[in-house]
Amino acid sequence: MNLLIKFMYNGSNFNGYQIQPNKRTIQQELEEKLSIIFNGQVKIFASGRTDAGVHALNQYANFKVDKLKYSVKELTYRLNKILPNDIYVKSIKKVTDDFNARFSAKAKVYDYYLTRNIKNRVFCDKQIYVFPFDIDLKKINEIKKYFIGEKSFMNFTSKKEDQNDFKRIIYSITTSLIDDETIRIRLKGNGFMMYQVRMIVANIINYAASRITKEEILNKLESKERNITSLCFPPDGLYLYDVKY
Amino acid sequence: MNLLIKFMYNGSNFNGYQIQPNKRTIQQELEEKLSIIFNGQVKIFASGRTDAGVHALNQYANFKVDKLKYSVKELTYRLNKILPNDIYVKSIKKVTDDFNARFSAKAKVYDYYLTRNIKNRVFCDKQIYVFPFDIDLKKINEIKKYFIGEKSFMNFTSKKEDQNDFKRIIYSITTSLIDDETIRIRLKGNGFMMYQVRMIVANIINYAASRITKEEILNKLESKERNITSLCFPPDGLYLYDVKY
Repeated sequence: MNLLIKFMYNGSNFNGYQIQPNKRTIQQELEEKLSIIFNGQVKIFASGRTDAGVHALNQYANFKVDKLKYSVKELTYRLNKILPNDIYVKSIKKVTDDFNARFSAKAKVYDYYLTRNIKNRVFCDKQIYVFPFDIDLKKINEIKKYFIGEKSFMNFTSKKEDQNDFKRIIYSITTSLIDDETIRIRLKGNGFMMYQVRMIVANIINYAASRITKEEILNKLESKERNITSLCFPPDGLYLYDVKY
Repeated sequence: MNLLIKFMYNGSNFNGYQIQPNKRTIQQELEEKLSIIFNGQVKIFASGRTDAGVHALNQYANFKVDKLKYSVKELTYRLNKILPNDIYVKSIKKVTDDFNARFSAKAKVYDYYLTRNIKNRVFCDKQIYVFPFDIDLKKINEIKKYFIGEKSFMNFTSKKEDQNDFKRIIYSITTSLIDDETIRIRLKGNGFMMYQVRMIVANIINYAASRITKEEILNKLESKERNITSLCFPPDGLYLYDVKY
């Protein structure tokens, strides 16, 4: 039986999604708790990793078990009861055997939250990025179009050289004002490489704050040489918002 | 020169407001940072203490210094630069010499946030109380009137026996729906004793969830014997919202 789990997490106190020895990770917590419930080792396959400190509002993973003793609702309830406060399972549903949370994903949506208001750090420390410069929203709209479409993002990822497929499609980049001083930038694409969202957002926002020029960005986008951007925003403001299947 | 500082803090990682040896407290952090700026020991006097884990959106303290090298705006900026992320100074202003943040206070307003939605713990752990029972808002309005006015709250505080002035005035108790599953209860009074807000809110909410009877509450309110309520909500949901001068 193949089960799809939809969950959210606060990445602040995790060393990212993926299991690593002697580190607290989301995968480790979930597999550990599922293994308790199923009384045997359970391995989960997520839509993708998220880095240390990155959050998720809707992350997905599938796992296979021989049989289910309770309803999926009861399983969700039991899992939440033993999970730590910073992970929450929103739902679990049965899927076809060939479904794989990673390979069946059609698109991913990431949100980045940034604020001018330093006060936000008091109750949202590690959940938003405080960027203390004036941002011209018109300049966001002006520059974002250069990132949309199928492109090589080799200069907007820290992904290793020897993995040479740097092409990704970005479907849309939208900006919303959450309040007078807080902005959300939403990127939808067919998939994102390591640091890609944070590097793209850092470039767009630094351009909108007149701290870099359009030429600097276009050079990175158009260059055939690897010359990775030095601009990268911290994980604090980054949320995996959803995965489309 | 007497200065009044208005500040906010996230109480989650503090052992309360008041200085204690070898514990991290809000007073200690503020006095330490002010002492650095003024190059000499500064002592502050707050409107009152808050207990371990309790938050403040608008707390006040005054302190006296010989002279001010910068404007109050510059002082605010310098202070925020060296304060940890969980304390933020909103403003500093000059007040008359006889002003005392504690004794000049006319009223205090506390907010308590509770939610049915366990999901809130993911990003607001220690900042809201998850109370997983149905609450009848009509029952809140029905019971709250018994707490309003000048009363002895000796059974709604953990304050020590030998301090026998248990009379306090509660001016108002108001309930707001923050969302479908989240409630804010605001209490305004001339002052609150240790655990008083949390014990009153715990009684009101447990009554509204039909977990205790009106008689149990009235017995505690009307009794001349000390028979402290066993119901007390955790500090997580409690915020000092404002102090009126």
